[in-house]
Amino acid sequence: LGKHLHYTVTIQTVSTCISLQNVEYMFGIVGVPVIEVAMAAQASGIKYVGMRNEQAVEACRLYSKFSARPSSLDMISSVVEKAVRTSMYGRPGAVYVDISGDMVNAKVDRSRVREVPCCPPPPVSMADHMAITEALAVLKGAKRPLLIIGKGAAHGRAEGALRELVEGCGLPFLPTPMGKGVLPDDHPNCVAAARSRALLQSDVVVLLGARLNWILHFGLPPRFDPHVKVIQVDLCAEEMGNNMQPAAALLGDVNAIVKQILEYVHKDGWKYPADTEWWTTLKEKMAANATMTKALALQSTTPMNYYQVFHHISQLLPHDCVIVSEGANTMDIGRTMLNNYLPRHRLDAGTFGTMGVGLGFAIAAATVQRNQNTGQRVVCVEGDSAFGFSGMEVETMCRYKLPVVIIVVNNNGIYSGVDAETWEMMGKMGDLTTVAPPVTLLPEARYDEVMNAFGGRGFLVRTEEELRSALQLSLSDWERPSLLNVLIDPSSDRKQQEFPWLTRSNL
Amino acid sequence: LGKHLHYTVTIQTVSTCISLQNVEYMFGIVGVPVIEVAMAAQASGIKYVGMRNEQAVEACRLYSKFSARPSSLDMISSVVEKAVRTSMYGRPGAVYVDISGDMVNAKVDRSRVREVPCCPPPPVSMADHMAITEALAVLKGAKRPLLIIGKGAAHGRAEGALRELVEGCGLPFLPTPMGKGVLPDDHPNCVAAARSRALLQSDVVVLLGARLNWILHFGLPPRFDPHVKVIQVDLCAEEMGNNMQPAAALLGDVNAIVKQILEYVHKDGWKYPADTEWWTTLKEKMAANATMTKALALQSTTPMNYYQVFHHISQLLPHDCVIVSEGANTMDIGRTMLNNYLPRHRLDAGTFGTMGVGLGFAIAAATVQRNQNTGQRVVCVEGDSAFGFSGMEVETMCRYKLPVVIIVVNNNGIYSGVDAETWEMMGKMGDLTTVAPPVTLLPEARYDEVMNAFGGRGFLVRTEEELRSALQLSLSDWERPSLLNVLIDPSSDRKQQEFPWLTRSNL
Amino acid sequence: LGKHLHYTVTIQTVSTCISLQNVEYMFGIVGVPVIEVAMAAQASGIKYVGMRNEQAVEACRLYSKFSARPSSLDMISSVVEKAVRTSMYGRPGAVYVDISGDMVNAKVDRSRVREVPCCPPPPVSMADHMAITEALAVLKGAKRPLLIIGKGAAHGRAEGALRELVEGCGLPFLPTPMGKGVLPDDHPNCVAAARSRALLQSDVVVLLGARLNWILHFGLPPRFDPHVKVIQVDLCAEEMGNNMQPAAALLGDVNAIVKQILEYVHKDGWKYPADTEWWTTLKEKMAANATMTKALALQSTTPMNYYQVFHHISQLLPHDCVIVSEGANTMDIGRTMLNNYLPRHRLDAGTFGTMGVGLGFAIAAATVQRNQNTGQRVVCVEGDSAFGFSGMEVETMCRYKLPVVIIVVNNNGIYSGVDAETWEMMGKMGDLTTVAPPVTLLPEARYDEVMNAFGGRGFLVRTEEELRSALQLSLSDWERPSLLNVLIDPSSDRKQQEFPWLTRSNL
Amino acid sequence: LGKHLHYTVTIQTVSTCISLQNVEYMFGIVGVPVIEVAMAAQASGIKYVGMRNEQAVEACRLYSKFSARPSSLDMISSVVEKAVRTSMYGRPGAVYVDISGDMVNAKVDRSRVREVPCCPPPPVSMADHMAITEALAVLKGAKRPLLIIGKGAAHGRAEGALRELVEGCGLPFLPTPMGKGVLPDDHPNCVAAARSRALLQSDVVVLLGARLNWILHFGLPPRFDPHVKVIQVDLCAEEMGNNMQPAAALLGDVNAIVKQILEYVHKDGWKYPADTEWWTTLKEKMAANATMTKALALQSTTPMNYYQVFHHISQLLPHDCVIVSEGANTMDIGRTMLNNYLPRHRLDAGTFGTMGVGLGFAIAAATVQRNQNTGQRVVCVEGDSAFGFSGMEVETMCRYKLPVVIIVVNNNGIYSGVDAETWEMMGKMGDLTTVAPPVTLLPEARYDEVMNAFGGRGFLVRTEEELRSALQLSLSDWERPSLLNVLIDPSSDRKQQEFPWLTRSNL
Repeated sequence: LGKHLHYTVTIQTVSTCISLQNVEYMFGIVGVPVIEVAMAAQASGIKYVGMRNEQAVEACRLYSKFSARPSSLDMISSVVEKAVRTSMYGRPGAVYVDISGDMVNAKVDRSRVREVPCCPPPPVSMADHMAITEALAVLKGAKRPLLIIGKGAAHGRAEGALRELVEGCGLPFLPTPMGKGVLPDDHPNCVAAARSRALLQSDVVVLLGARLNWILHFGLPPRFDPHVKVIQVDLCAEEMGNNMQPAAALLGDVNAIVKQILEYVHKDGWKYPADTEWWTTLKEKMAANATMTKALALQSTTPMNYYQVFHHISQLLPHDCVIVSEGANTMDIGRTMLNNYLPRHRLDAGTFGTMGVGLGFAIAAATVQRNQNTGQRVVCVEGDSAFGFSGMEVETMCRYKLPVVIIVVNNNGIYSGVDAETWEMMGKMGDLTTVAPPVTLLPEARYDEVMNAFGGRGFLVRTEEELRSALQLSLSDWERPSLLNVLIDPSSDRKQQEFPWLTRSNL
Repeated sequence: LGKHLHYTVTIQTVSTCISLQNVEYMFGIVGVPVIEVAMAAQASGIKYVGMRNEQAVEACRLYSKFSARPSSLDMISSVVEKAVRTSMYGRPGAVYVDISGDMVNAKVDRSRVREVPCCPPPPVSMADHMAITEALAVLKGAKRPLLIIGKGAAHGRAEGALRELVEGCGLPFLPTPMGKGVLPDDHPNCVAAARSRALLQSDVVVLLGARLNWILHFGLPPRFDPHVKVIQVDLCAEEMGNNMQPAAALLGDVNAIVKQILEYVHKDGWKYPADTEWWTTLKEKMAANATMTKALALQSTTPMNYYQVFHHISQLLPHDCVIVSEGANTMDIGRTMLNNYLPRHRLDAGTFGTMGVGLGFAIAAATVQRNQNTGQRVVCVEGDSAFGFSGMEVETMCRYKLPVVIIVVNNNGIYSGVDAETWEMMGKMGDLTTVAPPVTLLPEARYDEVMNAFGGRGFLVRTEEELRSALQLSLSDWERPSLLNVLIDPSSDRKQQEFPWLTRSNL
Repeated sequence: LGKHLHYTVTIQTVSTCISLQNVEYMFGIVGVPVIEVAMAAQASGIKYVGMRNEQAVEACRLYSKFSARPSSLDMISSVVEKAVRTSMYGRPGAVYVDISGDMVNAKVDRSRVREVPCCPPPPVSMADHMAITEALAVLKGAKRPLLIIGKGAAHGRAEGALRELVEGCGLPFLPTPMGKGVLPDDHPNCVAAARSRALLQSDVVVLLGARLNWILHFGLPPRFDPHVKVIQVDLCAEEMGNNMQPAAALLGDVNAIVKQILEYVHKDGWKYPADTEWWTTLKEKMAANATMTKALALQSTTPMNYYQVFHHISQLLPHDCVIVSEGANTMDIGRTMLNNYLPRHRLDAGTFGTMGVGLGFAIAAATVQRNQNTGQRVVCVEGDSAFGFSGMEVETMCRYKLPVVIIVVNNNGIYSGVDAETWEMMGKMGDLTTVAPPVTLLPEARYDEVMNAFGGRGFLVRTEEELRSALQLSLSDWERPSLLNVLIDPSSDRKQQEFPWLTRSNL
Repeated sequence: LGKHLHYTVTIQTVSTCISLQNVEYMFGIVGVPVIEVAMAAQASGIKYVGMRNEQAVEACRLYSKFSARPSSLDMISSVVEKAVRTSMYGRPGAVYVDISGDMVNAKVDRSRVREVPCCPPPPVSMADHMAITEALAVLKGAKRPLLIIGKGAAHGRAEGALRELVEGCGLPFLPTPMGKGVLPDDHPNCVAAARSRALLQSDVVVLLGARLNWILHFGLPPRFDPHVKVIQVDLCAEEMGNNMQPAAALLGDVNAIVKQILEYVHKDGWKYPADTEWWTTLKEKMAANATMTKALALQSTTPMNYYQVFHHISQLLPHDCVIVSEGANTMDIGRTMLNNYLPRHRLDAGTFGTMGVGLGFAIAAATVQRNQNTGQRVVCVEGDSAFGFSGMEVETMCRYKLPVVIIVVNNNGIYSGVDAETWEMMGKMGDLTTVAPPVTLLPEARYDEVMNAFGGRGFLVRTEEELRSALQLSLSDWERPSLLNVLIDPSSDRKQQEFPWLTRSNL
């Protein structure tokens, strides 16, 4: 009576990261109407992972590109086929199928159910030749060119073609958070360490499956040159011209279009010179930033600051691990200091609006990795506030023995907290609901003990040595999850930014 | 207080029919908050057409591909740009901008308003070469090929390339309702007169911007061969594989892709033979259908039947007129009997769900035609029930002296009615709310007098002679609208169909 | 496939006006899935009225207090029972039941369908004794008391008790638009002719089923005394305190509560004196306003102004007719000049947002009146713009021979228009879409001919004599509808208002 | 840009339990736009409690009776007043105010903000005298009468009048889950221990602020006598007749109406005899059920079963504590075995749909209790699956030192789990995502350690002695929260029910 089973094909959200040909996994929260579905799924060979909280699921629904509610039982197979296909064709996105509770136990004559085969890989389109010519004219005229590699390039599997373009033509590039790893972050042409400068001074920006949204400051001053020319490469026509009229719009599959561009530059052998003022500027800025970051990273204070923590993590993580990231400062700084080396090995929880999805992403990724025997690790870097949204999912990891490594960067608060002594003092000043700043959480909360509570390995980490040792132990354990509760200076903050990555107050 | 101004860029709905580069027209219902907007629009050179009823507008909102509500005054220009652009890029569609009433009289510092230039024509993409090769292999292997030309081909302006393909390769084609006129309906390769047979027996169907929706019976038996192979040409990736897995999926602009195909067939000179059994079958069926239709059309009875009416209309309409069509039988039979000779000269009101939009479409089309001085007429063919949804818009036509020719095919009812005598008898049998069939309308309602009421020309038409004479007079009058109230046999129906165009009960 | 039948129990909207014990009527637009329902309804004894346009229906859905979508066929009877009951119990309102198309032809085992009897009349509640005492203390302390009689009093059938209160205690009263007729508008204690003054200077206002919404200027200065005390009588708890904290809140059925008040005042014989300054003020203002209105009404110019028109209409309308009213000035002035003498005999189309419902209301009211043989007339007073929203419904009136009298007060525009000469001149100045003010409609549009077109009686009215004669003829004709197209001075406007009834620009 | 602050007046949800005159508390999740609001709230004297997860909040929105989005800053005060008022007047319910992010830092001229005083207590209405007479006639004719005391009686503070009615007239009563405590559960006239029998055989049921929803099996056979007569006492007119036509409908405030009834029975001194067959039946059934429950409760096995656990808890809980309850079996059995002795001291998380709200309710209740210095404890009884939905909120309890006692009744699963040994065996059989039943959770998960992790007191409980000792220690600690992780037999289930409390599969 009015109850519905919300069956969301969430696995597709993870599909940019790990290749899947068919639905092999089902993730769900068990309530009465779901039990039967879950058991039926298992019986038909689908692996079922029971979660503790449907938040990660709910988040998807809000942004789903397709949602449907089959009106009868025999419609389900074709609706699910359409959902799966829609999630993969065109711009990928979550889809939502709502199956009413009374269907779960209903029966249907098998002969009435049409068998719907799984869809083939997405169709591919290329750009118009004229648009390619226009784009190349603009690019060749650039004094300060910049490629921006986005999620669309990752999804389009454009890594091979892009490497040829970057290296063959000698162009600087910058990944977006979800574009990290399409080319390795330590590639000599990667100018991420001079991100703000590169964006500000470039005169021709090539967007490769990247969008001019808030992550890229809408392409507007003061973060971009007001006269910058933009070349858009995107498979979504409606995306063209968003926030800025492009100098050239290349509509189609990113991989196919980069190959088209390569055909042209192969003919005339065009190359952006290596000895330009632009490269000099970028390299100087990168060196300066590296120095400053390194100075912060090497401070060797206790409690640690963000840069120390990420410095050591970055040194120890295997290059082929999947990095899931969630939080405020933790996610921002992690983006710059944790390198990705392989495409589709990063899941960025994104904006505050969807806080709490990180552990769900990690569970999905680890389930798939284990079943595909890739030998790759899933590492989940969380702020302490972010962890609180779905921290009970560590029980799920323990239950299924998923060897996820969770690193909670714990500053006792949201954006920033206070230390234990200050907290105690506040408690004496009056009712904490009156005196405690809204951003503070309990100082030195033992998130590591939460992991221990369910049989995983928890580590309390205060020093660099403890951090390195705990991370090495965690990475060597393939039988169960670990959690590093890294206590940092609650007043630790990002280093001064020329421009912050994202001006949150503008959200 | 809670009132909103729903400003819908409806003119874009008409843009498949008549080319527009910029927003030149505004259509609206005047209420308090709209008056100021309408006056401001006129002051800035936009033509304003005040309608009587917002129904045509409302219909669009339900299906809009983009809808937004600017949160402040200075956002309006960029929101409208995005709306206009989104309506034209990718699959075209209606868009919806909701401006809250309190913004209408609010003021903003002009310096805060960003000037947003009009977007360039939509970007174009092409199909992957491999997909083209696959498609050609399938097409060349066809014994009974069939091209289906849809709205996407009209929107993509593929008429030139398609003519070359059809004529160069000798292929039979079929237009969908909105694809009519891309190639002329009287083209020798057009097999519309054998529509059901062509769909049923074809072994390879090429969808050119056409979708396998209910108009095409979802591509399923018993209307299609269960083993038919489908080649899809579409600019929307998510459309690929809908209802049927295609043998080849060509993603991109229809015009660009047809040109790609032509490049290949030019090389090897492939041509489908003219002397096949397939052509024989189709031609025989076309001849048989033509004979049957002609027999109905030439019955010369009074009251007339549908076929007589459309026969004479089709003889008199200029080849370059824009045909707007709405109704049940009227629209269905009109599709087969009223030829289109030019692309984008037909507006089909479509399914019942949007009944009442025909006169609005006609007003928009006539406004644009007059301003572009094309010398082309707008002819609106309506069922009597359909006309009732927005019949008061004839006042709008008279007010602006728009020379639309409305032909109401009047059968005293919805699907079918009764004659005046039967009606009178029913009235004597009891309360009409109890005894009159729900489908009946007032017999011989004088819709022509409604036109006279506002200074247009109304004609009551009972015979073939009256029909020809009234239509000729109407077409020669460029100063005001006309309405032909064509009384037909209320029991008139479509001729027996092997399969009806659309099985309504399946809707 | 995705089509739904929107079955709205609209008859309930009319139920404040005409008493109904059971659903006896069904109003609908016929399309495929509705035909079967309509025929089934007729077969089971329900009277079916086929409308031309679902606008009146649609309007209801937006404001429905209950909406449901039965999930299976055997649920329909109980869902409809709940809908009907909810529409009548508590604050009455429209309800909405959405039956999916595939249910219409589905079958169900009759034994599975529970018979649901029709609900009894709504339960009645009374106010708390303490609240009554408080209210009476406030009322007795009033220097300038004012009763405001609203829709809730009409719905609650409080006319008898209210007459006793007004006459027994000698209190002045004012009806809201939907409260008109609960007590006759010509009652000596009715101070409607001094409305603005009464609202402004009253120190104690008793709201009897009336709400402090925009119709009553939210109870705020400058339209009300800032220190006014309000006694609220309402059956909806959530309404109490809306926009203003009341001095007393009497929760319950208006009729029951007025009777409770009467019990108290009967005991002590309290009476508000007849010789107060307040009564003197009100009577002077009423006399002054009457003089001014009369002056306008007696101008005897041609073309007429609004006041002349309504003066003559008010003289000729039978006291027991149902008045339906819709438009801008037409509705506003009609409210003050057309008296109601019986409760629940007025249907006010209300705000612009629901324009187009007037003819639908009139059809419903006339259908019910005829079947109940009340001998009462339905008179529909419409502005010309309002008429255009659903003018084709005159065919429905003619079809069912419903003797509605429609009076279109035609000023050639929305708020105001131009005369024929000016219009012609404009046409010569350029394209009318550019030069014609957005508020203008075609001058002297012959709405009367629209009525003639369907066999009703249309009258073109320019003079007072024509108005009187046409109205008398219309009222004497019980066989068919009439339409008086009353051409007034297009620049005619309301007389200067101290405060306008409603400041539209604040909407 | 598109971010909104969802400010929900959730405190009102708790208002049935604890009396509040004004908004004194704010509960929120801190993100950027909320920080400023939280700080401003604290500055103006409101207590702020920062939660970890907005789930409890989200749940409310779905069922809110009022939701609004102020269109400008100066509207906020009146919108919040309306929200608070609406939440308390009429049927109480959650309300939702959505304040757009850009308002948070916007400024407004203080003179433009209208001060809106807090609303007075809700207005009270009484039943019609005739309805009272009818109801009494039915009640006096009853052979097997039964009062059902619901949430409405608790909200209406009808405890005094109800005690007089029950004791004065000698009537048996039954509380609904939220009606528990209005009269003490150990009252001699409480027949909860014979619930199914009482419902099934009663011939006259008086619903006192209780609804015939699924909790009461819709009032239908086989759970009710098909000829049962129902007297409804409710303040919501639309509730009357829902699912069953009542023999009498008393509309108004439950407390006021019970007093009206008392007035009548005082006059004639009517009393239901104590020596009826009905009382004999009920008492025998109660004794039999008590015996069976006691047998289960006294089994003294380890691991314990549900009845043992609740037996000991019920013995130790102070009579004035607030009980929050959430889960499946845990909530169902807890309803029957944990007595309430005071009205408005129980918060039942209700159906599965809102799982995860229990800890949020407990935090709100404990915050209010502490500030009102009531000396009452908040005890939260949770199933292990339910706890997982928002278990991280224990950090919030620790942070604010709220002495909530959480009892997790842990059966290693949802409905039922497996023991550690079986789990280990499963792990060896294959991938747990394939072999583990979807309802299982990690065996013996240490939820107590989660509490320890944040400085609260966790207890692992396996035996009756451990349970008693841990509960006593927890109740004596007023400085911090405690969590009892009570491991029970994973195959433990409810005792056989004649009819289960709720047939979940019917949901």
